[in-house]
Amino acid sequence: MTTVITYGTFDLFHFGHLELLKRAAAYGDRLIVVLSTDEFNLQKNKISRQPYDLRKQNLECIKFVSLVIPENNWEQKENDIKTHHVNTLVMGDDWNGKFDYLMPLCKVIYLPRTPGISSSILKEIENNKS
Amino acid sequence: MTTVITYGTFDLFHFGHLELLKRAAAYGDRLIVVLSTDEFNLQKNKISRQPYDLRKQNLECIKFVSLVIPENNWEQKENDIKTHHVNTLVMGDDWNGKFDYLMPLCKVIYLPRTPGISSSILKEIENNKS
Repeated sequence: MTTVITYGTFDLFHFGHLELLKRAAAYGDRLIVVLSTDEFNLQKNKISRQPYDLRKQNLECIKFVSLVIPENNWEQKENDIKTHHVNTLVMGDDWNGKFDYLMPLCKVIYLPRTPGISSSILKEIENNKS
Repeated sequence: MTTVITYGTFDLFHFGHLELLKRAAAYGDRLIVVLSTDEFNLQKNKISRQPYDLRKQNLECIKFVSLVIPENNWEQKENDIKTHHVNTLVMGDDWNGKFDYLMPLCKVIYLPRTPGISSSILKEIENNKS
């Protein structure tokens, strides 16, 4: 069994998230989502509209999400990868190169934007967060 | 086994849809979503941003959606209820009273807005559709 992991906040869950998760899940047999806690978001000067528990519940409704665990800090990735026997880390390509240091532990894949999703629609939704 | 059915367009899938579906699914063992086709939406003077196939794929990602079938016209509900042995029809309460004529066939439930979801956030997202 191959395990994929991804990280994010997934605030105000929408079809763009769904598409990203679907594509990430396709790299393995199970997908773990590591979800930024409200406290960690505060450290990043980011405030989500929905609290951690609700964001977690939303993710747990998705067929190809096997497990949701908390992201508490920037440093935990190495430990997550080892603990959960992760084969592949998948991130959006806005993080291009940022996690290459994990390549000795697992494959690292940066996903480009989905061609099928209008970036203007996504931008409208993203703007509603701020 | 009890079967629940609901109807809608579910354009630009978001957490509000997820919440509605979760609450609908709780009324039975399986949930059928009848999804308005693009042609039927045109009859209603409604244009979705995403075409039927994509809206269907989004719904099929949700754990508690058992089946997605097309809604082609206003008149098919009676037939759907009989064909799929539906016990309960669930709709948002913006449709209050509109489907009471189906009560001889199944339970008809109109769900109020979720208290936990800010109507202002939903409104922002809904406005992005137009």
